[in-house]
Amino acid sequence: MAYVHGYSKRETQRLYEQAEILEAIIHGSTVFGAGEKVLEAGCGVGAQTRLLVRRSPNTEFTCIDVSEDSLACAAQLKKAEAFENVTLKKASIYELPFSEGSFDHVFVCFVLEHLTEPVKALRELKRVLRSGGSATVIEGDHGSCFWHPETAASATAWNGLIRAQKAMGHDPTIGRKLTPLLEQAGLRIKTCSPAWLYADRLDRPLRDGMVDHIIVPMVQSAQEQILTDKLVDAAVYETGIKDLSRVDEIDEGTFFYTWFKAIAVNE
Amino acid sequence: MAYVHGYSKRETQRLYEQAEILEAIIHGSTVFGAGEKVLEAGCGVGAQTRLLVRRSPNTEFTCIDVSEDSLACAAQLKKAEAFENVTLKKASIYELPFSEGSFDHVFVCFVLEHLTEPVKALRELKRVLRSGGSATVIEGDHGSCFWHPETAASATAWNGLIRAQKAMGHDPTIGRKLTPLLEQAGLRIKTCSPAWLYADRLDRPLRDGMVDHIIVPMVQSAQEQILTDKLVDAAVYETGIKDLSRVDEIDEGTFFYTWFKAIAVNE
Repeated sequence: MAYVHGYSKRETQRLYEQAEILEAIIHGSTVFGAGEKVLEAGCGVGAQTRLLVRRSPNTEFTCIDVSEDSLACAAQLKKAEAFENVTLKKASIYELPFSEGSFDHVFVCFVLEHLTEPVKALRELKRVLRSGGSATVIEGDHGSCFWHPETAASATAWNGLIRAQKAMGHDPTIGRKLTPLLEQAGLRIKTCSPAWLYADRLDRPLRDGMVDHIIVPMVQSAQEQILTDKLVDAAVYETGIKDLSRVDEIDEGTFFYTWFKAIAVNE
Repeated sequence: MAYVHGYSKRETQRLYEQAEILEAIIHGSTVFGAGEKVLEAGCGVGAQTRLLVRRSPNTEFTCIDVSEDSLACAAQLKKAEAFENVTLKKASIYELPFSEGSFDHVFVCFVLEHLTEPVKALRELKRVLRSGGSATVIEGDHGSCFWHPETAASATAWNGLIRAQKAMGHDPTIGRKLTPLLEQAGLRIKTCSPAWLYADRLDRPLRDGMVDHIIVPMVQSAQEQILTDKLVDAAVYETGIKDLSRVDEIDEGTFFYTWFKAIAVNE
């Protein structure tokens, strides 16, 4: 599958770090019951799976992904952490190998933004969800992001990632659209809220985590496409990455980003 | 004083409506003690004053503004609502007619963004604040704003307001800078957090309040400057205003904006 961030070792590392840094913000209220069947669609390397299992140790998780390489990483993680309640399976989110109403809940995190047909995926998730079951969807919105000092070069470099993702037919600003997309798929939206991160010198570890371990590597993961396709001038890109990194190096630096978390029901 | 939104009757109305719509978001934790002396600097027409008095009925408020017209509106409000604990006074935020340490707290809301020298104003506020007293500062950030559907014209129209405000030497994206600005002024920052609003079809009154009663009139208040100074092409502006208004007319429409609320101490 075309994935704007690629499948490198550094990217795998970024995904695990990102999940840990964002746990409280993203997963605050994500707890499933004992014995319940939950489908995690697009589990990738298992970065969110680890957090799901930690919060719901007695839930039965079925985790699918289309990438064999990612699933191999997830399998390693499963073995290393001795997860007994996780079943990994290779499958497309568009054609799930499960019958109607197989799951009590479905969970999707940072997946729809990388698809060309998010509503088609949501309809397929609805199919395997039992009546009354819920869907939890968490997606970012790259248009929500701002920082200080915001130089022209740093804004352009960040915009390069947005353009790279859009060039693939994917949607980097999908967060703001979760309510309409879930309703288009025939699910009834219950809540949809920003899950935001703001960090300044009052919380340097959080600022460092967000800027140096998530945002900068996220842009760099798309660097080859950004430069090869000339989405951003190479010199501007280089300055932009430096300026973005600088947000975490100076006292004045501040950073804001918001994800959206939506919960919808299959009525 | 040059004020990007002007001093029209419609703008006065917008300010009162805005304050009521945003009360829970902006003033959630703003409560002052009985008998404490609080300076509200830049009270304007008294839109925030009304909420301050409602939440802290036994606090002594001194409210200053540089505009006589705005103070006349605030005086009308004071009379209509029979506020006994509010003293209105004409003064510049840069030269406060009070001696050192006169107040237990200072309160500033939607003011610094309209100044050419926000740090100078904060230093003057620090001067009249007693040792150990606190400053509460609330400012928006026009760069935090996004919506769906986001057309090119609506983004350009919104950007027209940002450009109009910047052309005056003021700072429409000051929200993200509160921590560094307060520290530059010699105050010690305690907390700084986003106070966000997200609205979709799940809360139509809130979405209507934000889009139709705050955002659209806010851009329109700067319309003359935007069009006369050709900051935005007139046809694009007209389409942009229609597109912005449409966010509130259709099921799919969503809207996000964040203010920042900072509390700092005079140590």
